[in-house]
Amino acid sequence: MRMYDIIKKKRDNRALDYKEYKFFIDEYVAGRVPDYQAAALLMAIFIRQLSKEETVMLTKCMMESGDCIDLTAIPGVKVDKHSTGGVGDKTSMVLAPLIAAAGIPVAKMSGRGLGHTGGTIDKLESIPGFRTELTTGEFIDSVKRIGVAITGQTGNIAPGDKKLYALRDVTATIDNISLIASSIMSKKLAAGADCILLDVKVGSGAFMKDIKGAEELANTMVLIGNSSGRKTMAVISDMNQPLGNAVGNALEVREAIDTLKGKGPEDFSVLCIELGAAMLVLGEKVKDMEQGRELARHLISSGKAGEKFVRFVENQGGDPRVFENHNEILPKSKEQLEIMAENHGYISGLDAERIGIGAMLLGAGRSRKEDRIDPAVGIVMNKKLGQPVRKGESIATLHINDRENLEQAVQLLRSSITVSERQAANPEIIKRIIE
Amino acid sequence: MRMYDIIKKKRDNRALDYKEYKFFIDEYVAGRVPDYQAAALLMAIFIRQLSKEETVMLTKCMMESGDCIDLTAIPGVKVDKHSTGGVGDKTSMVLAPLIAAAGIPVAKMSGRGLGHTGGTIDKLESIPGFRTELTTGEFIDSVKRIGVAITGQTGNIAPGDKKLYALRDVTATIDNISLIASSIMSKKLAAGADCILLDVKVGSGAFMKDIKGAEELANTMVLIGNSSGRKTMAVISDMNQPLGNAVGNALEVREAIDTLKGKGPEDFSVLCIELGAAMLVLGEKVKDMEQGRELARHLISSGKAGEKFVRFVENQGGDPRVFENHNEILPKSKEQLEIMAENHGYISGLDAERIGIGAMLLGAGRSRKEDRIDPAVGIVMNKKLGQPVRKGESIATLHINDRENLEQAVQLLRSSITVSERQAANPEIIKRIIE
Repeated sequence: MRMYDIIKKKRDNRALDYKEYKFFIDEYVAGRVPDYQAAALLMAIFIRQLSKEETVMLTKCMMESGDCIDLTAIPGVKVDKHSTGGVGDKTSMVLAPLIAAAGIPVAKMSGRGLGHTGGTIDKLESIPGFRTELTTGEFIDSVKRIGVAITGQTGNIAPGDKKLYALRDVTATIDNISLIASSIMSKKLAAGADCILLDVKVGSGAFMKDIKGAEELANTMVLIGNSSGRKTMAVISDMNQPLGNAVGNALEVREAIDTLKGKGPEDFSVLCIELGAAMLVLGEKVKDMEQGRELARHLISSGKAGEKFVRFVENQGGDPRVFENHNEILPKSKEQLEIMAENHGYISGLDAERIGIGAMLLGAGRSRKEDRIDPAVGIVMNKKLGQPVRKGESIATLHINDRENLEQAVQLLRSSITVSERQAANPEIIKRIIE
Repeated sequence: MRMYDIIKKKRDNRALDYKEYKFFIDEYVAGRVPDYQAAALLMAIFIRQLSKEETVMLTKCMMESGDCIDLTAIPGVKVDKHSTGGVGDKTSMVLAPLIAAAGIPVAKMSGRGLGHTGGTIDKLESIPGFRTELTTGEFIDSVKRIGVAITGQTGNIAPGDKKLYALRDVTATIDNISLIASSIMSKKLAAGADCILLDVKVGSGAFMKDIKGAEELANTMVLIGNSSGRKTMAVISDMNQPLGNAVGNALEVREAIDTLKGKGPEDFSVLCIELGAAMLVLGEKVKDMEQGRELARHLISSGKAGEKFVRFVENQGGDPRVFENHNEILPKSKEQLEIMAENHGYISGLDAERIGIGAMLLGAGRSRKEDRIDPAVGIVMNKKLGQPVRKGESIATLHINDRENLEQAVQLLRSSITVSERQAANPEIIKRIIE
């Protein structure tokens, strides 16, 4: 088999077979296929597109290129969750204990933030003492003992995807549904859960700007999951504004805790109930979404989800008092700056991507992988889309430690906010559920 | 300007402009654009295609990437010729002295052979003493003095094309009309002639297998030439069998000399008259092709083309007696092997590519650039398409020095010959003339 013939075949719009994808990925990871041949194939794939069968095969080959986590030592149906990335997305911190409280084992690998989106691992690390680098033994053992653990990526997960993604990033071959879907799913399949729930974000702050693209991505990922023997569902949710109010690590932990106490922002609370319901359906704890919502609400109102959160934090070395007293336990910024409305009106635009970059500039995120983050800083929105605002009223609060990029952050935040005379509809947080 | 944006633009099927091609080629030659980005762009160009304007721009940028030969010191209209490559193509050795004899200065750069096709430089070097590596001074001075010189490539001609061609070769992006045309024309434009005649081969032994592709290539190259201020014509000629009878370096010199004496094989003689006529038209020595053919025939029958050949060989250090007595002067092989017909019938197939590879295996050509060639060896066809043959009659003669690959060469040659009961038409050597 020659890489040249594989490139030529795809170039001429013919489907590749499993052996060909296998050869490509394995030889590329081994360094025997050079970047320039991989780049030529990627562009041919980008323009000619992959069939559904090809997408499933490519995903499988990328999954097989590295370690696959074996969760069979943990009894029960393991349910994993993945979000395509947004601003202010702290759902995992609510859902992991909530689902665990229903008796579904949660063995979750999470990532760090990059660019305008944050990462669950960074957020959890703002809890003093919290350890996110568990050994495989500790990870499995924790789930068996208390039903939930979240760790940073362990082992060599899907190196084929990692290498290919870096190449796509510099060859203008990122924005292709099949390639995006196979990249995400190769890592999720390798993570070992029996069922997968996908939270596909759509809107100005998301990778997918329109509902058509989001649906296509969701359908493709659900197909890959189900074709690979994992029960998979997707929820398409709104990302035209930050999720909830808080953007920034400790600020988001605080909001997640509030939500577990039933006092979270409305959009974020609704999303958690919806995603939780879907995970309860996948984990076969309930028969349908309606039962799932009911159970999810009950797990919060009864305090069971909160109790599980406390055990989860304690188990990973974090200070468990954070749940009752986050004000004392979580790091706080030295200064706060209020951004006031300049006119009366209604909030008609809150560009999530700009707000995410604004928070990054304050130190809450990374522009490059090697950047360090400041857990205390970030942005809290005091107004959301559709809400009325009076001149001089605070729209957002900046939590600041370092003033270096403050001016730029404030400008970005200001430019992200649109106030209009007429009231626009508040976007529905849940757009669609795909099973 | 960023390479990423250039790739993305072409990927999305939008035309690139001159500045973008300039940036790409210059930065690629300078090593600041990596191969993987160039490969991604090449695949996008391959699939999305180039417009005529883009093809002209790319050609110009590749020409500008290196030296452009300045022939202005030579008075008169300089006419160059290029063949897209075939088996047994020894036209330059006839045309250069023929056109020079008409008073058109010929300052020609030629190449070496690779694969199944030969090169004029290798062929001329089989004349004892002949020097093909002239300095620029010698080259220009020779043309001024005697009207004709042929040298190997001098200077740094179109390095952008050279680097890109090597990459295309390993990324399955060769077979694209715009890329082929711009590759050829960038070098021809840099070679400095005022007019260019293109001999586009079509058939089993040519790069272009069908007339449609050959016409498209010819039209594209003529457009590039004319758009670049060089009067350009193309002749599409047959390459379903070797041109003339001889394939191999000294063997082809012999045949070229015979042709200059008016005793050459019919197909080859016709092609030389036709190409010569076109060059006489381009050089404004005649008004039309018919006058050109008449003058070309006269230059041969009067001996003037032959006289010019003698002066040309002598001027570059070769033994001029080769013209009168090639039998004594040219190197000859130690052995000859006759390939006999196994049946009565008519020659209905002579696969030129296989015959070319057969000659290469005997030592007449190179499979890799660094291979050495043997000037004496090769294949002489004793029968051509459409001719009758009797069982036991010789179809071809192999001229052999080294028996190492003989068995393989004989097998290839045998497999290239088809003898049928019914007489097939001998293909017309001239398919079309494009002005």
